[in-house]
Amino acid sequence: MLIVDAVQTAKAGHSGMPLGMAKVGYILYRHVMRYNPRNPKWFNRDRFVLSAGHGCLLQYICLHLAGFQSVQLEDLQRLCLVVGPQVTLRMWLPMALKSLQAPWARFNKPDAVIVDHRTFCIMGDGCVMEGISHEAASLAAHWKLNKLTLIYDDNLNTIDGATSLAFSEDISARFKALRWNTITVDDTHNDMEAIKNALLSAFRETEKPTFIRVCKLSEKKGISKAHHGTFDEKDVKKMRRKVSWSDREPFHVIPMIYRLVFKSAAGKCRYKQSMEWHSRLCYYQTKYPQEFVEFKILLDGGLLPGWESSLPKFPTSDPVDATQGYSEKCLSQLAKVLPGLIRGSADLATSNKAYLHGHEDFSQPNSPWGCNIRYGVREHAMAGISNGIALHGSGLIPFAATFLVFSDYMKNSIRLSALSHAGVIYIMTHDSIGLGEDGPTHQPAVEQLAGLRAVPQLLVFRPADGNETAGAYKVAVANRNVPSLIALSRQKVAANLEGTSRASVERGGYIVSDNSEDKLPDIILIGTGSELCLCDEGAKMLRQEGRTVRVVSLVCWRLFDMQPQQYKEFVLPPSVSKRVSVEAASPIGWREYVGEEGVVVGVEEFGASGAYLDTFKKFGFTEGNITRIAKSLLSQ
Amino acid sequence: MLIVDAVQTAKAGHSGMPLGMAKVGYILYRHVMRYNPRNPKWFNRDRFVLSAGHGCLLQYICLHLAGFQSVQLEDLQRLCLVVGPQVTLRMWLPMALKSLQAPWARFNKPDAVIVDHRTFCIMGDGCVMEGISHEAASLAAHWKLNKLTLIYDDNLNTIDGATSLAFSEDISARFKALRWNTITVDDTHNDMEAIKNALLSAFRETEKPTFIRVCKLSEKKGISKAHHGTFDEKDVKKMRRKVSWSDREPFHVIPMIYRLVFKSAAGKCRYKQSMEWHSRLCYYQTKYPQEFVEFKILLDGGLLPGWESSLPKFPTSDPVDATQGYSEKCLSQLAKVLPGLIRGSADLATSNKAYLHGHEDFSQPNSPWGCNIRYGVREHAMAGISNGIALHGSGLIPFAATFLVFSDYMKNSIRLSALSHAGVIYIMTHDSIGLGEDGPTHQPAVEQLAGLRAVPQLLVFRPADGNETAGAYKVAVANRNVPSLIALSRQKVAANLEGTSRASVERGGYIVSDNSEDKLPDIILIGTGSELCLCDEGAKMLRQEGRTVRVVSLVCWRLFDMQPQQYKEFVLPPSVSKRVSVEAASPIGWREYVGEEGVVVGVEEFGASGAYLDTFKKFGFTEGNITRIAKSLLSQ
Repeated sequence: MLIVDAVQTAKAGHSGMPLGMAKVGYILYRHVMRYNPRNPKWFNRDRFVLSAGHGCLLQYICLHLAGFQSVQLEDLQRLCLVVGPQVTLRMWLPMALKSLQAPWARFNKPDAVIVDHRTFCIMGDGCVMEGISHEAASLAAHWKLNKLTLIYDDNLNTIDGATSLAFSEDISARFKALRWNTITVDDTHNDMEAIKNALLSAFRETEKPTFIRVCKLSEKKGISKAHHGTFDEKDVKKMRRKVSWSDREPFHVIPMIYRLVFKSAAGKCRYKQSMEWHSRLCYYQTKYPQEFVEFKILLDGGLLPGWESSLPKFPTSDPVDATQGYSEKCLSQLAKVLPGLIRGSADLATSNKAYLHGHEDFSQPNSPWGCNIRYGVREHAMAGISNGIALHGSGLIPFAATFLVFSDYMKNSIRLSALSHAGVIYIMTHDSIGLGEDGPTHQPAVEQLAGLRAVPQLLVFRPADGNETAGAYKVAVANRNVPSLIALSRQKVAANLEGTSRASVERGGYIVSDNSEDKLPDIILIGTGSELCLCDEGAKMLRQEGRTVRVVSLVCWRLFDMQPQQYKEFVLPPSVSKRVSVEAASPIGWREYVGEEGVVVGVEEFGASGAYLDTFKKFGFTEGNITRIAKSLLSQ
Repeated sequence: MLIVDAVQTAKAGHSGMPLGMAKVGYILYRHVMRYNPRNPKWFNRDRFVLSAGHGCLLQYICLHLAGFQSVQLEDLQRLCLVVGPQVTLRMWLPMALKSLQAPWARFNKPDAVIVDHRTFCIMGDGCVMEGISHEAASLAAHWKLNKLTLIYDDNLNTIDGATSLAFSEDISARFKALRWNTITVDDTHNDMEAIKNALLSAFRETEKPTFIRVCKLSEKKGISKAHHGTFDEKDVKKMRRKVSWSDREPFHVIPMIYRLVFKSAAGKCRYKQSMEWHSRLCYYQTKYPQEFVEFKILLDGGLLPGWESSLPKFPTSDPVDATQGYSEKCLSQLAKVLPGLIRGSADLATSNKAYLHGHEDFSQPNSPWGCNIRYGVREHAMAGISNGIALHGSGLIPFAATFLVFSDYMKNSIRLSALSHAGVIYIMTHDSIGLGEDGPTHQPAVEQLAGLRAVPQLLVFRPADGNETAGAYKVAVANRNVPSLIALSRQKVAANLEGTSRASVERGGYIVSDNSEDKLPDIILIGTGSELCLCDEGAKMLRQEGRTVRVVSLVCWRLFDMQPQQYKEFVLPPSVSKRVSVEAASPIGWREYVGEEGVVVGVEEFGASGAYLDTFKKFGFTEGNITRIAKSLLSQ
């Protein structure tokens, strides 16, 4: 009735899933899950993930009845009515994989198991249809995540009508083919015991994750009305009568219910478990002091003081490399000082230069706990799972690597990183038409950067050389609640520039060089990534002709936008109206920085296939062309 | 050897798949597929889709050997070296569904089957891992696409190494669970006959699509080297020796091979099939003249002269509606005059107002050939399949409907619509924070529009009222080689404005109202979609205070950008520097239109949950706030 009251009061919301899964929620929170409402962030608690996030009402009510202070009755009464950020949990299945525990379970000792929590996830029809759930389910079994239990609410019912309109899989056979343990519970007859037994039987699995299909066998016809929306008042009356609730006020909770969920035998035992865990940890600290120190570092966030100093410096005398090559050098240094660094790549470990050499693979026969995760060709799941790892609260620092153009596959999960404050680091190589031969399908010549820069909070970096790459990592690793995306070149950049700096990356934009001394320059050339050195070369040519030229690196728009107005005007003085921006990507957004008179050199069509210098030339990315454009602007 | 020669000459490219699937390609083009190289666009030809598009070399060589004029030996010699657009076919599985034939098979008569072509698709490990293939495979079986055959190149080998690093599914059991016919061919012993038999046996299926796993049973260890890159010259020599090719020039083809593939017994028969089809069509024309006329209309592109006049007109006196409501009215009129219109929605038919009422569902028990496709919750496959339908060359006009925020799930396929010149119409409702209660996860408050506008060629419309919605459809339907995306509001717009016009939408931007007569206005207010009426209201208030104000609708940036400079300066005169843009989305890109002095009213954070007027107010989208900003600008 709490579900019905909340929806009726809000005049909106989704009651279908919460009503259908109410029993499952009750059994999970009363009989199955380990947690401590007095210490909600207890590390070894079981995790509950609501993949069918539109049914969040169920989770709110369970948390409330279980005694979590964070959800009060008043919150249920104001559902959907509060103007403010209210994140529902529509994060799909991969979040469930936060039980990943990669470098965690290695802490367990035969006499002191300190990491053994489970993850329970409720999913609906949409979740099993979306491709990302397939990617994640395939990986969960491949990785043998036996502590993961999925509960599928097979309620025959979607927004548009019966599920059978668009679904005819043998879903249990499908999960079995993916190597899951599968259980079916017929929920037609309201069988609480069967659900409980299914949930508890999963504890016996030592290798397979468990898929529990809770199905209503066509007793009631699926009707879309049951998905969302309010009820007719007469139906509410009928429901109230049926459960002998007619003379109760809305939102009434019998006090005993709180005691039942929180103080039941199971409840006491659960509290005891949390106490036991803490004493086990004390024992662990004494017996395994070295491991404990590392465990503690992770629990505290994973960043040891001074970690930044491990980042390499790149003198201009160094041989030039692709920025993805510089990235590799940064990562291998970071891996030495960040115990939580965990790498992921979607079948492009070698191409991305994003493999942590000297470290092992995760979940391969000979290396169960290595920190190199192989996601296969599953970009969307990679991003979703990385979100789960970041939000697990265990000091792990996940990075996810693929080609920039494939960010399209994971766009929604990148958005959720930002929305959920997950400090995932996206490493996106092959970042422009500069990748050459693979042609337009692989060339994010145009839209990816623009779209990603528009994602609120996300920090998009496009470093120009080794030092800027190191600077991008410095900001990205330090920001554990903000996602970062580092776009890197596959082709070698022209040089490690003299004026670039690791420290300046934090400001998003800065002056790389300027020969105007204390006056204002005639013109400003603004570049990012592999095109910054074109600006530098162009500036040299112009200066030889007696012009004063400033070169500005705009390595991260958002960070630059966040600077004080004074600093922004120091870098881009309003009175210097002659400006040229150079970036081998969509011109969208650049007008903000070049002003009305400025010229934006960008790419407005899909790329082209060919050797990279040829494609660069075709689209006008040469020192010669930049100089020509600058001169024509100066002569106006 | 052609494959090896091409890769060695280009010094790049992917030889692994082409070498592994060479036999399959040969058998397909020699013994199985129906086509006519002299008439490559013969409508009833079988279709070949290369989902593993990086192996395009295989397809090029097959086309060449089969006698298609479009691929000459010289093309193979210049692989990857030509600077120019070169689309590889990495479109994944859904393209294979172009055998959809929805309103096509209904033309068949017992005595004259005119539509019965098949689709063959080769896919690799990446294809079976990516979520979109799962979505599409589930639908293919649900729709009973018995004329679809998938060939899975199970070569144990990915870029990063053995496939088993990240894959342990029982893939055949998975497809069986999805209700496919599954066949396994052990290709270890080079068994051409077994492959041929498997391919031909699929012809007997009357309900199920067929999945053929061609596997190499661990005879050779998977090595990533075999995925892409060039060979050592000594390996090439060894290969040449092995097939007695040592003294041939590179790119040598024995003339007999051409005859074998093109003029074999099967080849003759194939040519005969195309002739037979044409005489069958003549018979059909005589016996079923009415059906033939409709069939012909579709073959000719599906647009009957004058179709545009069916679009409704919306007088200002009409009751106001959401733009998605106006969209529904347009669609129901279009459905009457466009026989090829085929609708798709991802479980949101009712929410999107994008169901073609009076028409039946596609592939439901009682309506096998209806034009309403129910995709379930599978946005990515919806977009991919829509591309396939548009590129099938059969006059079908697919539209795909979901919430704008879910465009993130299908971003890559939207990109491929543009790259492949597929005239898909994307109908994206719930297009801003105006959707209210569902909160930030569902509110594309920010980045979606910016990212989509950056996609080359894609026409992104955000109509303000009924007439602009009709105008957007007019452009979208007429452009059969360019994709369009129409962003629509869920909330009612304030009015059908007096100054909006269906015809003007074609120019992308135009003057809605202006009280400056033949002088220039003091200020220009620029809006799109549901915010245009805020500009209109604001303008009224300012005019009452004696100001001259121009209101401009910028309904489609790209179309406006394509106008002659003179027209653009007529709408946005450079000398009017006081401009305000109003759009409940990311400000990125607006500076281009408001200029340096202008003010961009946008949303820079994720939305908020609440009644829509409250969320609008929270983010400053009220007439009052717009007027205040305009006044402050005017007083500067």
